[in-house]
Amino acid sequence: MRIHIQNPSADDLFAITPAQWDTACARAGETGHHASCAADETGFTAAIGAAEVLIAQPGTVRRFLPFAAPALRLLFCTAAGLDAIMPFTWLPPRLVLVNNRGVHGTKMGDYATMALLMLNARVPAYADAQRHQQWTPHFVPPIGGRHVTVVGTGDVGSAVARAARRLGLRSTGVRTRAEPHADFDRVVAVADLDAALAESDFLVLACPLLPATRNLMNRDRLALLPHGAAVVNVGRGALLDQEALADLLAAGELSGAVLDVVVPEPLPPGHRLWTTPNLFVTPHVSTDDPTSYNPASLEIFFTNLQAWREGRPMPNRVDPRRGY
Amino acid sequence: MRIHIQNPSADDLFAITPAQWDTACARAGETGHHASCAADETGFTAAIGAAEVLIAQPGTVRRFLPFAAPALRLLFCTAAGLDAIMPFTWLPPRLVLVNNRGVHGTKMGDYATMALLMLNARVPAYADAQRHQQWTPHFVPPIGGRHVTVVGTGDVGSAVARAARRLGLRSTGVRTRAEPHADFDRVVAVADLDAALAESDFLVLACPLLPATRNLMNRDRLALLPHGAAVVNVGRGALLDQEALADLLAAGELSGAVLDVVVPEPLPPGHRLWTTPNLFVTPHVSTDDPTSYNPASLEIFFTNLQAWREGRPMPNRVDPRRGY
Repeated sequence: MRIHIQNPSADDLFAITPAQWDTACARAGETGHHASCAADETGFTAAIGAAEVLIAQPGTVRRFLPFAAPALRLLFCTAAGLDAIMPFTWLPPRLVLVNNRGVHGTKMGDYATMALLMLNARVPAYADAQRHQQWTPHFVPPIGGRHVTVVGTGDVGSAVARAARRLGLRSTGVRTRAEPHADFDRVVAVADLDAALAESDFLVLACPLLPATRNLMNRDRLALLPHGAAVVNVGRGALLDQEALADLLAAGELSGAVLDVVVPEPLPPGHRLWTTPNLFVTPHVSTDDPTSYNPASLEIFFTNLQAWREGRPMPNRVDPRRGY
Repeated sequence: MRIHIQNPSADDLFAITPAQWDTACARAGETGHHASCAADETGFTAAIGAAEVLIAQPGTVRRFLPFAAPALRLLFCTAAGLDAIMPFTWLPPRLVLVNNRGVHGTKMGDYATMALLMLNARVPAYADAQRHQQWTPHFVPPIGGRHVTVVGTGDVGSAVARAARRLGLRSTGVRTRAEPHADFDRVVAVADLDAALAESDFLVLACPLLPATRNLMNRDRLALLPHGAAVVNVGRGALLDQEALADLLAAGELSGAVLDVVVPEPLPPGHRLWTTPNLFVTPHVSTDDPTSYNPASLEIFFTNLQAWREGRPMPNRVDPRRGY
């Protein structure tokens, strides 16, 4: 097939190289493709007219929208969350949309373990104290036995749940329907989120950003968390009301937050979140491992391409109406 | 027996209360003791003359040294490290010295897990970046497969090793003699420390402060760590050359450090460690859990008291010549 890879820029840390492509083809036993690779608009324009498959990050796709691609039949987005190219009104009805969910689990386990322990130990408060050169101990019990609510039970959310279980926490997963999930101690439907919040020592947001989840953790819902609870966001910044979160942290109602995703990204100098007490920012690094990301993404791509070619269900096909 | 408990102050978070004492006696099946409890010098002076057993933190004991205690036969220090009351030249030869090693394991597992993940993810650098309101991602591989060297294979060091194993790290323990230890992938003698350092992604200091370990990680030894390695100190600040560590961090030779113990404590405003790049300070909180510390310490006390009374080996007896 004619496959075009459009990278964000040639020197991007996650740019897919021709060598990585060749290695992935060999591993997957794929031959006979005509692949092109570009990182600028000229390269995109030259290739997109004939391309049957496009591989790109959602942010890169957005830069070129709308574009004419009469031969295009499959779009593989090298990200789990496709909010950057929603709504899908621009999407030709016959185009097959595939994401790379499944690539984030291992590293997310590390990040979730770390973020939960940091919040239990009051590390965001120690970062503030170090800034002010103050020695202010907070003695706390070990984390085992506490309760975490995880919104989202997909690849990322279930990695969070497994990490929580290894730490001895009890977990509640929140998903569209209350179907059980082996990685969670219990699962509730999103309609029962409010009741779950009131019992949560920790809240982790790990769901896609969709019309139904935008501002899910609004001011009223954040206020349902118990005094001293803490928040982790590894989904998308717009899942929560950042101003309300900052107010609750400044008032001491919440004990801490670790945010890997924020609005906007990058967070500009002078933004309130940089100086909100007990709030720790990491710059959208929770899941992406440069040594494994492209090989793993391309393996997911070929798994889906082969399923598509053989008429089997594609594990990563995105339903444009659901958005994931 | 006549047992005196001397607390650092009445409102200290770790002061042993009469209620905690009574509960511990009941749990241990101990009756008939004559116990006193004080938090000031008057109370100490009134009780120490007749006391057969003294229970106190090392720092509290030090405040009253030297003191006449003609009836004293057993000193239970509610800490694992007794460096605050070394050298033991003041110790009457017949006094039995007992520490509370064993009380720190659970919480140390949490702290070690967190500190290793924080260093792998470059969290100290993100704390610096947040201080300067800069969005500076560092993309790193998951921690699994990396190598940690732990100096000290006692209660604290072995808790670090178990935490490291759960994260998928390989571990080398460093102890006086190279006897194998189930929690470590391998153990080397302290004489082979230099060779181990050269292979370490992470170094964790988890040994007591003794004449033989003071400044163990001097400038020359710190320089043996590979470029990009990172350091955790949960032992005592004086185990390492803080100035040399700060120089290596400032030069970018080491990628980070998480220090729970420093010299001096509390670290005063204006001290270089507060602003050393990629260095994160926590205020000596890695092991102490106020909800469980006193009950666990008193359980250790009674276990040792019963062994002593029955002429069995005391699990926590300290050899004054070794210092632990």
